[in-house]
Amino acid sequence: MADKRFFTVAGPFRLAQLAELAEAELGPRADPGALFNDVAPLDTATPADISFLDNRKYVSQFEGSRAGACIVAREVADRAPAGMMLLISAQPYRAYAKVAQAFYPVRIPVGGVAATAVVDPSAKIGPGCRIEPGAVIGARAEIGDHCVIGANAVIGDGVVIGDHCVIGPGATVSHAQLGKRVTIYPGARIGQDGFGFAMGPQGHLKVPQLGRVLIGSDVEIGANTTIDRGSGPDTVIGDGCMIDNLVQIGHNVQMGRGCVMVAQSGISGSTHLGDFVAVAGQAGITGHLKIGSGARVGAQAGVMKDVAMGETVGGSPAVPMTEWLRQSAMLNKMARK
Amino acid sequence: MADKRFFTVAGPFRLAQLAELAEAELGPRADPGALFNDVAPLDTATPADISFLDNRKYVSQFEGSRAGACIVAREVADRAPAGMMLLISAQPYRAYAKVAQAFYPVRIPVGGVAATAVVDPSAKIGPGCRIEPGAVIGARAEIGDHCVIGANAVIGDGVVIGDHCVIGPGATVSHAQLGKRVTIYPGARIGQDGFGFAMGPQGHLKVPQLGRVLIGSDVEIGANTTIDRGSGPDTVIGDGCMIDNLVQIGHNVQMGRGCVMVAQSGISGSTHLGDFVAVAGQAGITGHLKIGSGARVGAQAGVMKDVAMGETVGGSPAVPMTEWLRQSAMLNKMARK
Amino acid sequence: MADKRFFTVAGPFRLAQLAELAEAELGPRADPGALFNDVAPLDTATPADISFLDNRKYVSQFEGSRAGACIVAREVADRAPAGMMLLISAQPYRAYAKVAQAFYPVRIPVGGVAATAVVDPSAKIGPGCRIEPGAVIGARAEIGDHCVIGANAVIGDGVVIGDHCVIGPGATVSHAQLGKRVTIYPGARIGQDGFGFAMGPQGHLKVPQLGRVLIGSDVEIGANTTIDRGSGPDTVIGDGCMIDNLVQIGHNVQMGRGCVMVAQSGISGSTHLGDFVAVAGQAGITGHLKIGSGARVGAQAGVMKDVAMGETVGGSPAVPMTEWLRQSAMLNKMARK
Repeated sequence: MADKRFFTVAGPFRLAQLAELAEAELGPRADPGALFNDVAPLDTATPADISFLDNRKYVSQFEGSRAGACIVAREVADRAPAGMMLLISAQPYRAYAKVAQAFYPVRIPVGGVAATAVVDPSAKIGPGCRIEPGAVIGARAEIGDHCVIGANAVIGDGVVIGDHCVIGPGATVSHAQLGKRVTIYPGARIGQDGFGFAMGPQGHLKVPQLGRVLIGSDVEIGANTTIDRGSGPDTVIGDGCMIDNLVQIGHNVQMGRGCVMVAQSGISGSTHLGDFVAVAGQAGITGHLKIGSGARVGAQAGVMKDVAMGETVGGSPAVPMTEWLRQSAMLNKMARK
Repeated sequence: MADKRFFTVAGPFRLAQLAELAEAELGPRADPGALFNDVAPLDTATPADISFLDNRKYVSQFEGSRAGACIVAREVADRAPAGMMLLISAQPYRAYAKVAQAFYPVRIPVGGVAATAVVDPSAKIGPGCRIEPGAVIGARAEIGDHCVIGANAVIGDGVVIGDHCVIGPGATVSHAQLGKRVTIYPGARIGQDGFGFAMGPQGHLKVPQLGRVLIGSDVEIGANTTIDRGSGPDTVIGDGCMIDNLVQIGHNVQMGRGCVMVAQSGISGSTHLGDFVAVAGQAGITGHLKIGSGARVGAQAGVMKDVAMGETVGGSPAVPMTEWLRQSAMLNKMARK
Repeated sequence: MADKRFFTVAGPFRLAQLAELAEAELGPRADPGALFNDVAPLDTATPADISFLDNRKYVSQFEGSRAGACIVAREVADRAPAGMMLLISAQPYRAYAKVAQAFYPVRIPVGGVAATAVVDPSAKIGPGCRIEPGAVIGARAEIGDHCVIGANAVIGDGVVIGDHCVIGPGATVSHAQLGKRVTIYPGARIGQDGFGFAMGPQGHLKVPQLGRVLIGSDVEIGANTTIDRGSGPDTVIGDGCMIDNLVQIGHNVQMGRGCVMVAQSGISGSTHLGDFVAVAGQAGITGHLKIGSGARVGAQAGVMKDVAMGETVGGSPAVPMTEWLRQSAMLNKMARK
């Protein structure tokens, strides 16, 4: 059960309600009227909890779980322990997300501007916003409705933030425009100067960075991630992108809708990504490339040329994933001889 | 000598006192009553300073050093310059640590809550704490005795911090419980949501992150490092772990006692480490793995499967270190032909 | 055109003025008296704007651009569209930097200490400084003339900052001395303890970190980058170094003049770099090495031994770049068979 110091549970819910939310089918022995108090992981769930099985690595935990109900794929349903009710779903993790959101809805924070927050008189703050202690909001900034500006976060002059955004504590945002329902995690840095200078033996000469960061709606940007503003063009993050912690995004990068970047990955300046590109942890993409929609970049890969739509690449320098796997297998074999 | 703008030296100490602290043996020409004023590196030490030699790369600096005394291993003692007194130790760096701690003891900061700090009335603050300007402490948080909450740090609602902890300036901690003598460096991010969502072409669906971060005692967490809270299980950092700067630790990761993670390394979600695992710089470990106690992961390695107790791995994808070295040597040779 | 919410343009300027600033030659059809209002990228420039072509990838944009004038290398001048005036330069990016700096000069911010800033009475603040809300400046710190200390930045006790420095919002600086015209980006961490401890099965023993961070003049340090102070020796960043975001610099590292470190690269403790070393993105250099002046380290390279002056290395473990390219090509070929 989630620690009550930090979380407040809603519910209980009847299994039928949860099945409807989850767009899941009730299993054969499921009692639609059964009440559940909470969600819990397989290994700590009690008969009053509903759990889920998504990663097949955990089937043995599933077989031994005391959970009263579980969301699973049809293929593993027959491995359920006796007495466990099932919700059958083709996408158990997605179904669980909906059930968990019901038990733990996002609570609308109490509004108001903290006494030690500093809001420029020319800034506009929408109704229902919560401006936490020490937050600083610059001249002419515009904050939409029901936003949270976390403690000690800094919003620069002129920044525009849409409705229902959450800016984490200690984050900084400048030269940027955000859509709706954007979550910026603690310590993320948005909108500072890109790494633009003319190198030379007589010294490196700074190039003014005259673009912005444009962020769509329903975007998450992880803790301590850095997104530089454009140098002239803008840096653009499309709707629904999910960016993890400690990611670097250089100036003029453009990402389409629904892209995913895992922790510690990075994209150099002026590279363009299509929609739903997935970049795994610690991977890097050099500058001025085009990465097609649906492309996937493996963990620690180093992408040095364009990647076609739907292609999966791995290795450094990156090659098609199947070639990289072949290279690795071949190397292993040769070195063992 | 350490710059007096920043450091205050204790002492002087007699060589016999230092030998006792360091659990070291006095060398043949050492005068137990000789007084030393400070510690210093080999190349800048004066006759009033005590120095140390640990890394054999610096033997020539040792041979030319003006240090009045030096902590060394027995094997290199005969390379000492004339007139230098020696403290002989099987672990010179450890011995030096104890001597340096004597000259530069951790000073207990002056307590009190700064005027611009914001402490929720329901928070409990132990005696002797120092709450610096701009720090924000949330509702029901509990801070132990003699802690420092640095300037502009943010401690979330309900967080529990043990005695003698130091939270660096600008760090943020939420949904977490810390043991005693934990040091969180500036800008570290502890306890934010993990990167948990159900991916899908109809958009990525956020999964509520319902766990905590549990940190043991005597732990250090580096500057701008990010540790996400668990998704349901907790993220756990065992006693005595040392985590460097810019490290990423995903949700549900569990680390045993005394693990070491060097800068810019990362561990994906739900991977479990045993005790005294060492992960070198820029290495990555994917999710849902088991890394045995005493295992070592080389710099920039990419670990994609379980690692057995005591095993050392390298390369990406990682293989046993000896195989990786063989692969690298073989590649070099072949490419030269 | 740069968004007026965030940028204020100077000018207009006559082409002759811009040519002089850029140290560029007027092209054959250029009218020295023609007025230009702004700089703009090739693809969005209007006839009132001046643009530039540096990366040959964008020649087709150049050919189709509506820019009234463009800075280019002589070799591509004949590809200019009809009616476009040219400024010819051997270093178009450098020339553009000077022109853009004229249109967007660094504005001296309005001075003064914000009401919620906390400046220790013993600190010295030069004339013309701007100390933003929530900034904290410690005892005996010395801030030069015309500096900006950003919102919620924290300057530790005794820190010395030269004239015309900018410390970004949320950054922290301790145990450090900065030259003139240094820019520290948001969230950078300068001067915290290095990762120094004596490892051992009985627990890891902290080694006091007694050095400083010494930063020269005309240095930039990127967002969320971490630079640890020395352990006894100092950590040194030479004049004119450019350090990108999320870079890690360990204790005792010394960098000469004009070094460049791209995002997410890292240097372990006690490694020394000469002048004008360039380290590409996500590359790592292990500890206690010497990297000669003018050396270049490729993206994601892992440097494990010294690099000679002027050498270029790639791969992990890093080898001379030509060998690494041969290795990669060979591997590709073999795996395809």
